Amino acid sequence: MKSAMEKVNIAEKLSLFSDHWNPRIIGELNGQHVKAVKLQGEFVWHHHDHEDELFLVIKGKLKMEFKDKTVEINPGEFIIVPRKIEHKPVADEEVQILLFEPASTLNTGNVENEKTRKHLEKL
Amino acid sequence: MKSAMEKVNIAEKLSLFSDHWNPRIIGELNGQHVKAVKLQGEFVWHHHDHEDELFLVIKGKLKMEFKDKTVEINPGEFIIVPRKIEHKPVADEEVQILLFEPASTLNTGNVENEKTRKHLEKL
Repeated sequence: MKSAMEKVNIAEKLSLFSDHWNPRIIGELNGQHVKAVKLQGEFVWHHHDHEDELFLVIKGKLKMEFKDKTVEINPGEFIIVPRKIEHKPVADEEVQILLFEPASTLNTGNVENEKTRKHLEKL
Repeated sequence: MKSAMEKVNIAEKLSLFSDHWNPRIIGELNGQHVKAVKLQGEFVWHHHDHEDELFLVIKGKLKMEFKDKTVEINPGEFIIVPRKIEHKPVADEEVQILLFEPASTLNTGNVENEKTRKHLEKL
């Protein structure tokens, strides 16, 4: 990961990996992480007890499913998912995302399964 | 400002105002604010004692001046300015920015002048 006071090109970071559901850390500030991730398919229903999450779409279309509605998020748009709220990200085709959330955030929240990533690479 | 669990279109928020150096709050999470702002001209040299700041360029070109170098940031790129580091944003032409920083952050940091904005509108 570049040192502070160097700029980060988001598309360049996203070009460095191709796997899905495996966030990379591309920035750190104020105890928060900026992560780049590619999603495709359906994630798992989960929530985070203590963390709000911001999903900013860079490329593609993200569907964020909640228990009572689904929100479609396109490039240049973001959604904030508050702590404790059950949600499931779904991407019919690959979507490229920037995440902004506390450094403590586990991708699958209260659930642990084969998609859980406890140790994230820094790019 | 929209309630949580509704998406935010960044360009739409930026279309709602035209003044410079006056950040609007367009998202809140984990004690942090997401702000939209338009910059043109030269800001003031300043630092923040307790807050790191992220500048993500949406449109235009931002020059971030530090005491020992200048970094040019283009659309799709961001820079993180760590706390205590003196910096001065400069925009030769209008640049549209997303800020991510603690809710406590004052735009002019340790300096107060005519560009200081203590009370920010929520859009």
